[in-house]
Amino acid sequence: MNRIKVGVLGATGMVGQNYIRLLNNHPWFEVAYVAASPRSAGKRYAEAVQGRWLMTDPMPDAVKNLVVGDANLVDGAKGHCDLVFSAIEEDKDVVRRLEEAYAAAGFPVISNNSAHRSTPDVPMMVPEVNWGHAELIKVQRKQRGWKKGCIAVKPNCSVQSYVTPVHALREAGFPVSAMFVTTMQAVSGAGFPGPASYTMLDGIVPFIKGEEEKSEQEPLRILGRLVNGKVENESSLKIAAHCNRVAVIDGHTACVSLQFAAKKPSLDQILKIWRDFTSEPQRLKLPSAPIPAMIYRDEPDRPQPRMDRDAGRGMAVTVGRLRPCPVFDIRFVGLSHNTIRGAAGGAILMAELLKAQGYF
Amino acid sequence: MNRIKVGVLGATGMVGQNYIRLLNNHPWFEVAYVAASPRSAGKRYAEAVQGRWLMTDPMPDAVKNLVVGDANLVDGAKGHCDLVFSAIEEDKDVVRRLEEAYAAAGFPVISNNSAHRSTPDVPMMVPEVNWGHAELIKVQRKQRGWKKGCIAVKPNCSVQSYVTPVHALREAGFPVSAMFVTTMQAVSGAGFPGPASYTMLDGIVPFIKGEEEKSEQEPLRILGRLVNGKVENESSLKIAAHCNRVAVIDGHTACVSLQFAAKKPSLDQILKIWRDFTSEPQRLKLPSAPIPAMIYRDEPDRPQPRMDRDAGRGMAVTVGRLRPCPVFDIRFVGLSHNTIRGAAGGAILMAELLKAQGYF
Amino acid sequence: MNRIKVGVLGATGMVGQNYIRLLNNHPWFEVAYVAASPRSAGKRYAEAVQGRWLMTDPMPDAVKNLVVGDANLVDGAKGHCDLVFSAIEEDKDVVRRLEEAYAAAGFPVISNNSAHRSTPDVPMMVPEVNWGHAELIKVQRKQRGWKKGCIAVKPNCSVQSYVTPVHALREAGFPVSAMFVTTMQAVSGAGFPGPASYTMLDGIVPFIKGEEEKSEQEPLRILGRLVNGKVENESSLKIAAHCNRVAVIDGHTACVSLQFAAKKPSLDQILKIWRDFTSEPQRLKLPSAPIPAMIYRDEPDRPQPRMDRDAGRGMAVTVGRLRPCPVFDIRFVGLSHNTIRGAAGGAILMAELLKAQGYF
Amino acid sequence: MNRIKVGVLGATGMVGQNYIRLLNNHPWFEVAYVAASPRSAGKRYAEAVQGRWLMTDPMPDAVKNLVVGDANLVDGAKGHCDLVFSAIEEDKDVVRRLEEAYAAAGFPVISNNSAHRSTPDVPMMVPEVNWGHAELIKVQRKQRGWKKGCIAVKPNCSVQSYVTPVHALREAGFPVSAMFVTTMQAVSGAGFPGPASYTMLDGIVPFIKGEEEKSEQEPLRILGRLVNGKVENESSLKIAAHCNRVAVIDGHTACVSLQFAAKKPSLDQILKIWRDFTSEPQRLKLPSAPIPAMIYRDEPDRPQPRMDRDAGRGMAVTVGRLRPCPVFDIRFVGLSHNTIRGAAGGAILMAELLKAQGYF
Repeated sequence: MNRIKVGVLGATGMVGQNYIRLLNNHPWFEVAYVAASPRSAGKRYAEAVQGRWLMTDPMPDAVKNLVVGDANLVDGAKGHCDLVFSAIEEDKDVVRRLEEAYAAAGFPVISNNSAHRSTPDVPMMVPEVNWGHAELIKVQRKQRGWKKGCIAVKPNCSVQSYVTPVHALREAGFPVSAMFVTTMQAVSGAGFPGPASYTMLDGIVPFIKGEEEKSEQEPLRILGRLVNGKVENESSLKIAAHCNRVAVIDGHTACVSLQFAAKKPSLDQILKIWRDFTSEPQRLKLPSAPIPAMIYRDEPDRPQPRMDRDAGRGMAVTVGRLRPCPVFDIRFVGLSHNTIRGAAGGAILMAELLKAQGYF
Repeated sequence: MNRIKVGVLGATGMVGQNYIRLLNNHPWFEVAYVAASPRSAGKRYAEAVQGRWLMTDPMPDAVKNLVVGDANLVDGAKGHCDLVFSAIEEDKDVVRRLEEAYAAAGFPVISNNSAHRSTPDVPMMVPEVNWGHAELIKVQRKQRGWKKGCIAVKPNCSVQSYVTPVHALREAGFPVSAMFVTTMQAVSGAGFPGPASYTMLDGIVPFIKGEEEKSEQEPLRILGRLVNGKVENESSLKIAAHCNRVAVIDGHTACVSLQFAAKKPSLDQILKIWRDFTSEPQRLKLPSAPIPAMIYRDEPDRPQPRMDRDAGRGMAVTVGRLRPCPVFDIRFVGLSHNTIRGAAGGAILMAELLKAQGYF
Repeated sequence: MNRIKVGVLGATGMVGQNYIRLLNNHPWFEVAYVAASPRSAGKRYAEAVQGRWLMTDPMPDAVKNLVVGDANLVDGAKGHCDLVFSAIEEDKDVVRRLEEAYAAAGFPVISNNSAHRSTPDVPMMVPEVNWGHAELIKVQRKQRGWKKGCIAVKPNCSVQSYVTPVHALREAGFPVSAMFVTTMQAVSGAGFPGPASYTMLDGIVPFIKGEEEKSEQEPLRILGRLVNGKVENESSLKIAAHCNRVAVIDGHTACVSLQFAAKKPSLDQILKIWRDFTSEPQRLKLPSAPIPAMIYRDEPDRPQPRMDRDAGRGMAVTVGRLRPCPVFDIRFVGLSHNTIRGAAGGAILMAELLKAQGYF
Repeated sequence: MNRIKVGVLGATGMVGQNYIRLLNNHPWFEVAYVAASPRSAGKRYAEAVQGRWLMTDPMPDAVKNLVVGDANLVDGAKGHCDLVFSAIEEDKDVVRRLEEAYAAAGFPVISNNSAHRSTPDVPMMVPEVNWGHAELIKVQRKQRGWKKGCIAVKPNCSVQSYVTPVHALREAGFPVSAMFVTTMQAVSGAGFPGPASYTMLDGIVPFIKGEEEKSEQEPLRILGRLVNGKVENESSLKIAAHCNRVAVIDGHTACVSLQFAAKKPSLDQILKIWRDFTSEPQRLKLPSAPIPAMIYRDEPDRPQPRMDRDAGRGMAVTVGRLRPCPVFDIRFVGLSHNTIRGAAGGAILMAELLKAQGYF
């Protein structure tokens, strides 16, 4: 099978490196182009990243000799690849325009950046939850006059630990009306270098700029319905998020309390719903789709980030500690790998979904 | 001034060592007796603890040569001290009976243990919050026929970070009806050795046995009213607690959302209430009373355990990040030092209070 | 190909679990028997380990239903397996006798325990270094009258980071006469629970009981020559070891200074020797043999435990920072994974070696 | 007593903040001037540091309203203070010239910076070791035509853990000829933000730029003799240093092996020498001089950074684990607080010494 040639924009940064790592030996995609800031442009990838390769897996040989392009120059990608993953770290306005320029030039753009997360005609997807939002791409292409190009984005890493469990319940007939979530987020979520060791050793930072807002609003869009070519945000759910940075390398943990909108399932029903949960990426047998999509652990003290983040090659959501809540109805703990499921891995799964759905 | 001779039961353990450390050069109390398990009995204190002194301050010279008594033998304390601090780590039933035996023998017993926290005639106190519950001691003495002896206990370390802020609001006319709290608790809260480094490095344990129950129930008693010699638990408040162990040495952090029962204060009102808050221990100028009792920090990323736990020599509660809550009314972050305010220091403050109130 | 049925003694402990994990899907060996203390005996393995599975990979399905035998009863293994891996954690005398009993009963015993490390007729091997010592098994069988059974042991985990680099130099004609090594060892090296998080967070313990002695003496035997059925320890090498426990999950790091006995290679020569190094396990294409056996990293700040411990699936030794030493001749930093290369993985490689050499 | 008014150059950085903290309520010195980069100049100190106060003690009230001067403008200090502590973080050439300009303008300059550590007429001092080198100030003033101004510098933080123990032995008649030292250094030694938490959690960095060179050369100057107005470096001592960054907040630990030049003291002699050790700062009763200057701990697993760094208010050197070395003569572990003894605290002690010696 001929693999699709893909480019990685922002390829030298931490998320970009994760793309490079996860796309190595991918059955459908092949990294054929890398781009970064003008400072790196013109160097071989291995040289541009020298001494700053942050992955524990070695740099794949296949990318070492790729010449780094200037991510600001859309023409640089032409002829090299047919799709780009965007991990550009720039001002939101710059990113927004740049991603649009790539799309206008005919590239499907799969993005980690938050720039387009509230653009009405851009789908923001957790493939297991709102795979259907991909239809927005038709609207997008029509409105913007794009033929082959398009933009699709993934949500913030912090929401992955609880959106899927909540979706599974709703889909089974138990929509949620209110939710408290307290996250304990890994330092890798802040990129590199991220928080100082002087701050994090023996420490907690009970604040992550913009994170609570994203954690409270993005799920409403993800859980929204597509009506007449628009996403109507879920309006009957209220979320309050407390976001903390803790001394963990990878893996965001969330303590969640839920109130159901109407019917309340029993704990046994919930366990069954979560254990049986499967979705479109699993049905389509997408290469990065974890099977199962969600793992429930019976031990009283799980999930834990170091122990559970790599479940399903970092793509599964692990939940545990389901129990009644004295104020709302139920509570549980959710965990997902923030740089795999919550970043590059989630974006790759979305690209696989769009491919399987025929969008390119 | 003649200092009161005090004994420390369970003096070789971590909480016991904290008593020894904090009572060093105390203006009112003097450690004149130490007791531990039969295994340690008969040895000099320095010898019994050898190689297991867990404090960063050196062992006070004054206790090094005290001969360790057998904590199970009440008679051993007689003649040596007039009050005992109990940090016995045993089965709850054993502790309960033993503390009663000391009280029956004429010793005021100030305890860290949870054994008597729900005994109706035993006051469980956070001195800034429910100093008036000390009156239960009169009931206790009458019912049990004790003349000089008595038992008073401090609550669980996890509640200290949020009970005082909630009390201050209630006292100012803004009682709270519902509360979500997620704690991130230090490893020292589990005693020594406590959780394995293999578990905690790059890890979180989202479970502490019995902690959520204590965190949800003890505040109701502390905030309860004394009516006809009984504490009527606060019945109009519901609490949901998620308790986590994190890689922090000392200091429990709590993310809290509050719903007010009736009137809702503005954020400015709350800040003023907290900043102006003072209470009986401060008015009585008790030696261990922090001034101020509560510290509000304006920085967006505080409180943090390593930075703030030692405020007020470990006795102050530090709060920050007051902001509206999208589901309840307000939310904030609270922090207190679990082995000082939350354990030995809180118990010593309670002993000072009872002394100032004339109970011995 | 029919796989050899193997047993794991001490299968419920941390090293035992590592055996289970690493032997999962092994091409030559199949775990067919597990044994542990009498307390666990009779239970299914999954049940015996319940809540104490310390690996991040899930427990292999193949072992979950194995009924745990009593490791003290050699007969229990008969008929179930043809070779045992010993991870028994008991008094040295007990282990020594028990391992001999298994060998006498016809089982090759491959051991992690230190009990037999100085037994004259028992080979202690790092397969890349002294694969020839396997011949001691012939002596052993003859002396003890064993036909099929035998005992072979692996050395202490701390020596793996520097013995192979030193061996490679010696083999190339540059023997070493003196060596300083300071280790910074991971907490997993102490088993579970190992050191308390209260001790290790923001801490270093500059002492590991017995570790410096092992680190100084075991290499002399490993580097010794087999003469007339006896290992003559390397007598012209002196080692001084400082061993520290640090806040690292897995991976022992060693800072090493070397003095050459005679000829001094240039730094370039050394790099070439290390980069070209290969040995018997690689030539025999043993399933667990890392290729390359040793990795030299050019970056100025490597090796680092989290980044490099998993090189060669945890079986490679990573070295870096080769430079002149102002007191001795050269110095470098070495790193290896203590629970894989330094424990279960190293033992499995030794079993593969013995199998390939025809000892069973 | 009138306190000497002092200025702190580079007052907003981490070392500068440490000066501010340690000089609070100092009996001899009073912070009357603070200076930093032009960016901060003109602001109140509290405002300039806002949100970046890295100390756990609160900012002293006395400095909050000081208006920050521009450290590049020597005139700004005139009239405000009579001595400056330099914690400027700039290019070495810039620092060198700037410190000379302050000295030329009549200010004694006490510096943490490495710019002048090898300037022949500038004393680099550990007050307990080479207090006599202060005489270089006379040479310096004569050569440079300075009347009141002068420059004195403290050495690198990493050498403090072992220079004093080695000096004590030499002074007692047991000079050392060779030394291996492996340091495990705290993250605070790199300033703020210093190493990323992504790097240090579950990690070690076996490299600190320039640190091994300083660790090997600075002790030779400190231990050198003042002959005819020049320091003759100790020429009969060779040092090899391996420097590592570890996940510790404060406190540098050093594993040290020593070879004696001639006579070898017994371990008991060494213990007595270390325990009896006192020096000029102690004899002069300097306010910051720790008593004792050195602490020997008998426990087998000490010193440890979190437990021992604050000994003597962070000014004492703690040693332990004295034992024979199989390659050299003896070995031990040393520890000192890098931001107190090794930085601001050591500089303040040096200023006290120079004051007591009459240099200003």
